[in-house]
Amino acid sequence: MKKISILGTGIVGNTIGTKLIQLGYQVMMGSRTATNEKAAAWVSANGNNASAGTFADAAKYGEIIFNCTKGDVALDVIKLAGIENMDGKTVIDISNPLDFSKGMPPTLIPELCNTTSLGEEVQKLIPKANVVKTLNIVNCEVMVDAKRSGGDSTMFMCGNNEDAKAAVKKILVQFGWNDILDLGDISNSRGTEMLLPIWVRTYMTLKNGHFAFKIVR
Amino acid sequence: MKKISILGTGIVGNTIGTKLIQLGYQVMMGSRTATNEKAAAWVSANGNNASAGTFADAAKYGEIIFNCTKGDVALDVIKLAGIENMDGKTVIDISNPLDFSKGMPPTLIPELCNTTSLGEEVQKLIPKANVVKTLNIVNCEVMVDAKRSGGDSTMFMCGNNEDAKAAVKKILVQFGWNDILDLGDISNSRGTEMLLPIWVRTYMTLKNGHFAFKIVR
Repeated sequence: MKKISILGTGIVGNTIGTKLIQLGYQVMMGSRTATNEKAAAWVSANGNNASAGTFADAAKYGEIIFNCTKGDVALDVIKLAGIENMDGKTVIDISNPLDFSKGMPPTLIPELCNTTSLGEEVQKLIPKANVVKTLNIVNCEVMVDAKRSGGDSTMFMCGNNEDAKAAVKKILVQFGWNDILDLGDISNSRGTEMLLPIWVRTYMTLKNGHFAFKIVR
Repeated sequence: MKKISILGTGIVGNTIGTKLIQLGYQVMMGSRTATNEKAAAWVSANGNNASAGTFADAAKYGEIIFNCTKGDVALDVIKLAGIENMDGKTVIDISNPLDFSKGMPPTLIPELCNTTSLGEEVQKLIPKANVVKTLNIVNCEVMVDAKRSGGDSTMFMCGNNEDAKAAVKKILVQFGWNDILDLGDISNSRGTEMLLPIWVRTYMTLKNGHFAFKIVR
């Protein structure tokens, strides 16, 4: 059974890690320190297939690595995890370059949007890894259970490596996604990350995060 | 019957103008000169309720004004149309701040996205008009006939004036939109205009513009 790592101990990392354990994977949660309290609590709640370590421990452990850190620290975390620890591996980037410094609704971090994207910058930082951008366009409960949106929704995916995308697609299907649109190379992260401003506004309008986008065609 | 004006003689203005004529409205198409060939051809194809004039003529004529110009000239066109000619009127802004200068896919014009939007800048330029941003997230054939997307889709709308939004909603319903999400004030144009990068990439993936977004919830 595949070993998967999660970078980040927040609600996104916790929710994805828990779902992967339920699906039978072995999962290590990585954080800045080997004794992170939230990671330890997650391990104790998730049984023998769950473990925790530093970002570098996690980067070494997983065949597939989920980046579930916040967008404003994601590139720093990748460096802490060790560039070479991810060589040849599939890195699923779920992070969004959100800037909450001026309150709600957030903007995107200007140097990480429009003419580039966080997905592209992550790929540049780990050129021997295969970055796949996906799942960043819904709340984490919908990420791991597509039908929580209330119906048939679309999930976008992009990345430079076809084998990596095929592996990620299998996990997306396990998460309940039936309509997966492969947009092409990692530069298409610009499109999916720029969905966040409308996601946030739709959330503020509906007052409920259990929704998703469907490309009706 | 209401008089409506269209700023712009491109395919968007033509398609919307033609649909409004079919719905029984009196429509004037405005352009830089009173003798624009595309406007004259549109008038001759659309009968007695169709007319043409300058941008200023059109701004004076309509009770509702559709801005169907390209995003990189929209603010200049509004000035040519005459700020005061739009006082108290409803201006439906369909324009997107797309930058095609580096080819496909376009980026957004940096000074018109993320921390502001074209919709907001149009509203600032005509503070006594009531700008409503909508329809900018689909191709023009889908704008005027929502079912062309192939199913039940969502249309976003935003603007500062409730009466103006109510008037626009009536037209959206005539265009076949049943699921209309009012996001609030005009600053929410940031969200809907930033949908364009994913629209363009979805179009390039599907190789077909007859699609739309549904908020599944």
